Amino acid sequence: MELLKERIRKEGKVLPGGIIKVDGFLNHKVDTKLLAAMAEEFEKHFDLSEATVVLTAEASGIALATLCANRYGLPLIYAKKAKSDNIEGGLLRSEIYSYTYKKKVTLLVSAEWLKPTDKVFIVDDFLANGEALRGLCEIVSAAGAELVGVGVAVEKGFQPGGKKLREAGVNLKSLAIIESADENGIIFREE
Amino acid sequence: MELLKERIRKEGKVLPGGIIKVDGFLNHKVDTKLLAAMAEEFEKHFDLSEATVVLTAEASGIALATLCANRYGLPLIYAKKAKSDNIEGGLLRSEIYSYTYKKKVTLLVSAEWLKPTDKVFIVDDFLANGEALRGLCEIVSAAGAELVGVGVAVEKGFQPGGKKLREAGVNLKSLAIIESADENGIIFREE
Repeated sequence: MELLKERIRKEGKVLPGGIIKVDGFLNHKVDTKLLAAMAEEFEKHFDLSEATVVLTAEASGIALATLCANRYGLPLIYAKKAKSDNIEGGLLRSEIYSYTYKKKVTLLVSAEWLKPTDKVFIVDDFLANGEALRGLCEIVSAAGAELVGVGVAVEKGFQPGGKKLREAGVNLKSLAIIESADENGIIFREE
Repeated sequence: MELLKERIRKEGKVLPGGIIKVDGFLNHKVDTKLLAAMAEEFEKHFDLSEATVVLTAEASGIALATLCANRYGLPLIYAKKAKSDNIEGGLLRSEIYSYTYKKKVTLLVSAEWLKPTDKVFIVDDFLANGEALRGLCEIVSAAGAELVGVGVAVEKGFQPGGKKLREAGVNLKSLAIIESADENGIIFREE
């Protein structure tokens, strides 16, 4: 998606360790107009006519997923993050490792809101190691629901998450895939 | 806002200790159409013509604040929650007590994104003890910015947050104020 790549080129900051900061328009200060355009763009890549719900994980996926759900006329569910020792009943759960917080967290969705009849479109802002998305896919499986696809704003193509998901047969579309990012600039994967 | 009150009456669950669960449409599974109607409703109560940014706190405020920002054509900023020992530079911060997590948390906003020239509309899904909103107001002050008003979806009128904010002169509008909630049902404040 050219509009997104332009913003990353113009405003993205590359920090040591391959960290790409886009917190001026994606995940701290948020340009909702750009996110709404992303929600529209996903419709070109996925058949969402049968989807029944948009699923994301708190917190940074919520803004994009909200605009997707609103555009497609679907409910949104966001998985909550809890410490891995937090145990309750009636919950769908998946343990993931958070590279941001450097600890295990558990993604939780109430079993009340995700059913075997659901067809789920997963949305997230970032894909790097793919732990959050692996966890969301596991929750869809645990619910006995069907995965329609996974829509991501920015994928770090030099980290393994995207490759793992595609090899697992997930219908994944990232609107911008960063092939490399260093002091020389940001290079996107050709599509 | 009658539409919201109807949903709370129909789908809200009252748990012991005055806890009101509305996680089927507001803060876990989310009815974005209802939230979009709330964003529209705020326009009847606030003059947002001069506002420059919508501010909320992660995670449960983000969905409503996103639809507000998108409707008003404004950027969204969401304050991040960190443990209170997490110290970095260039940040606006406020220490609050989280009754949900029963611990102190620090609300953080990058000083890069909130400036003295900003006129801020704060949005949140819930108002009970008012700690999150007090923290967001403090961050607006710390930035030297101007507070336009505070829009809330559901206020628990039997807890002190709303009263404290109003007494402090904050222009606060809650779309539904719950006066009492117990096994006999939910009673709203007359307006």
